[in-house]
Amino acid sequence: MFKHISDVLKEKEGEKVSIRGWVYRERTSGNIHFLVIRDATGVLQCAVKKDKVDEKSWATAEQAYIESSIEITGTTKKDARAPGGLELQAERVVLVSKGEPFPISKDLSDEFLLDVRHLWLRSQKITNIMKARHHIVNYLREFFDKEDFYELAPPIITKSQCEGGATLFEMDYFGEKAYLTQSSQLYAEVFIFGLEKVYVLAPSFRAEKSRTVRHLAEYWHLEPEMAWYDQEMNMRLQENMVEYVVQKMVKEHSELLEACGRNPEELKKVRVPFPRMDYEDAIAKVNELGGKIEYGQDFGADEEAILTKELDVPLFVHHFPKEIKAFYMREDPKKPGTVLNDDLLAPRGHGEIIGGSERIWELDELLTRMKEFGLDPNGDMKWYVDLRRYGSVPHSGFGLGIERLTKWILNLDHIRDAIPFPRTITRCYP
Amino acid sequence: MFKHISDVLKEKEGEKVSIRGWVYRERTSGNIHFLVIRDATGVLQCAVKKDKVDEKSWATAEQAYIESSIEITGTTKKDARAPGGLELQAERVVLVSKGEPFPISKDLSDEFLLDVRHLWLRSQKITNIMKARHHIVNYLREFFDKEDFYELAPPIITKSQCEGGATLFEMDYFGEKAYLTQSSQLYAEVFIFGLEKVYVLAPSFRAEKSRTVRHLAEYWHLEPEMAWYDQEMNMRLQENMVEYVVQKMVKEHSELLEACGRNPEELKKVRVPFPRMDYEDAIAKVNELGGKIEYGQDFGADEEAILTKELDVPLFVHHFPKEIKAFYMREDPKKPGTVLNDDLLAPRGHGEIIGGSERIWELDELLTRMKEFGLDPNGDMKWYVDLRRYGSVPHSGFGLGIERLTKWILNLDHIRDAIPFPRTITRCYP
Repeated sequence: MFKHISDVLKEKEGEKVSIRGWVYRERTSGNIHFLVIRDATGVLQCAVKKDKVDEKSWATAEQAYIESSIEITGTTKKDARAPGGLELQAERVVLVSKGEPFPISKDLSDEFLLDVRHLWLRSQKITNIMKARHHIVNYLREFFDKEDFYELAPPIITKSQCEGGATLFEMDYFGEKAYLTQSSQLYAEVFIFGLEKVYVLAPSFRAEKSRTVRHLAEYWHLEPEMAWYDQEMNMRLQENMVEYVVQKMVKEHSELLEACGRNPEELKKVRVPFPRMDYEDAIAKVNELGGKIEYGQDFGADEEAILTKELDVPLFVHHFPKEIKAFYMREDPKKPGTVLNDDLLAPRGHGEIIGGSERIWELDELLTRMKEFGLDPNGDMKWYVDLRRYGSVPHSGFGLGIERLTKWILNLDHIRDAIPFPRTITRCYP
Repeated sequence: MFKHISDVLKEKEGEKVSIRGWVYRERTSGNIHFLVIRDATGVLQCAVKKDKVDEKSWATAEQAYIESSIEITGTTKKDARAPGGLELQAERVVLVSKGEPFPISKDLSDEFLLDVRHLWLRSQKITNIMKARHHIVNYLREFFDKEDFYELAPPIITKSQCEGGATLFEMDYFGEKAYLTQSSQLYAEVFIFGLEKVYVLAPSFRAEKSRTVRHLAEYWHLEPEMAWYDQEMNMRLQENMVEYVVQKMVKEHSELLEACGRNPEELKKVRVPFPRMDYEDAIAKVNELGGKIEYGQDFGADEEAILTKELDVPLFVHHFPKEIKAFYMREDPKKPGTVLNDDLLAPRGHGEIIGGSERIWELDELLTRMKEFGLDPNGDMKWYVDLRRYGSVPHSGFGLGIERLTKWILNLDHIRDAIPFPRTITRCYP
């Protein structure tokens, strides 16, 4: 029986165990080969001594490459110099697959590492990030389960252009023109009339021509939608969700956070209520702090960085001018010209992670707004208009980018490391 | 404060409550309007008596359409004739949105119901199925959580054709030719070298030209992949997973199962181990029972129906000829010409829900097989071949169609009802 390395590290001295995994590091010191083996749970130093193993095991240890797959049986020994404080003194070494010399070594270019992403995903760096992403997504679902949401699967191939035509991926659908969804929000809205509180977690697609550290052509999008929620309830749900996920990560996975390069202490400060700032005030603040932006412009990375550089918690910016936001956002009757919306900006320049709003729920208001935006209410979005035609109700919702949330929580430099196989303008391989 | 209907139904007589929802049924009997209201949790009969409410409430009840959204305040009264045994005696009725007459009534064609799918999703039938689907997916995840799997997000846009070219959706990716993924398995295999046991749950796409009750052009695909698993471990994992989900549904959601048209008693019989049949024996059995199939042909719906019509539990069929299965399946050294694979067929003709196999993990074997299949190991699948080039390990995995599993568990006639917005050759709207 093979043990996982994390379990072996809990053993006392003198236990006989077998492990299997991949060669992570290796060096030779006279008559000892040190092989550091990794599996999904950790790394373990194994000392292969020439006079303690048979000839075949010695030869095996000698010829193993970095990333060769291997099985080692031996006896545990406390050793403060070994990672985890324990070493395995090998008795038997078996090569599962020697393979070829691994093409990834130190100081390789980002582009090369993306070319061999299928191999680079074995690295401790990316493996840790992927573990953390798994937990982040799990805690998000756990939060919505506790809040009695239903998860549903939206369609990916659609006829609707919900975020404008510039970033659409077009495809041929059995001879008909169709698109990859840019957002599943409009479909999520359908479900609230039967299930009230729902979310979808699915890929969204944007043919983004910009190369930035926070844009992907394909990303995972969490989109909750809630019947009977106004914008205040919507924002509270958002901050509670973010607090829940962040504090769960701090509580349950602080070592993993540290391994990813995030000090958990910084995240402990992420507590509700998050600060809020009116769009108009945010414009003034950006200009005051050395930025340059006019009323009616949307924030870019620079402005978001200025607004959040001193913050430890995310910042809500709300009440944007209706012209620069999506057609479905409800105008605030108390502040005409602006919508009941929010962008949630992550601290320290990590940028927007959530966009949310109260939706226009009355038919006349929707038809008027669609006209202003040049959208045809009788075309491919007729079904969406129908939702206001039969027993509509007030509702709100938001969209969260999983990779953006992950980038912030783990304090990553680039969004591409928050997803296993990043798709950008220059890349859809491997 | 509004209460959910499921909570109101637990109240004793004489409680004053407010509810909100949609008009599900309505009839008038002299000076009483009976409005049956639905929300996400249930239905409640409300009696609006002319002499017990103000004029406005009476008029509101009178003019409400089916599916109008409405708020009602009243007092609970036990009534054996009402659904759930409780009636709300209305004191105040407020219309949220009257809307227009709802276009869905009885005896409408399937095609029409698909045209108004965005409205039909409010029906009790589809709402119940969507609730059940939510739970099924949750229990699948719960199972893999308990088994220490990591969930990862695979890419949707790819350069690889993993299941052959005939059913590929092609797209333009910034001027380059790319495809929508037919399966994420090849990518799932990447992750096992870092995380060992992983699964992906993501949309897959097949440009299926056949119109059947079990094919969709877009479906959700659960694809686990496990390092160090042989085919025997793989099949055990599959049956344990299916048993877990089915028995959880029986235990926690038997009413919902019944509402969807499935007798929970039938599902109680779904216990491991599931019966197993060699492909060769299955061929003989089909012919014996009146079907007609030759060795070397794959099973279609008819043959699967013959094999499973008397069964209460799913059936494994294993050891298919290697020519008719995917290139990545490992040949059984003990039975040359056949692969270490399984198709898991749901009982009573519901058909294949899982396809699984041990994967070829040695480089030479993979290169030979790819040559036989006419696949270029140095082309767009080079990255996949690389996985065998650097420290490969034995591994297995499988693919489960979420909609097919749902169709069987809920005993649905057609797979299109197992997904909110079915995509078929004739339809990608709404």
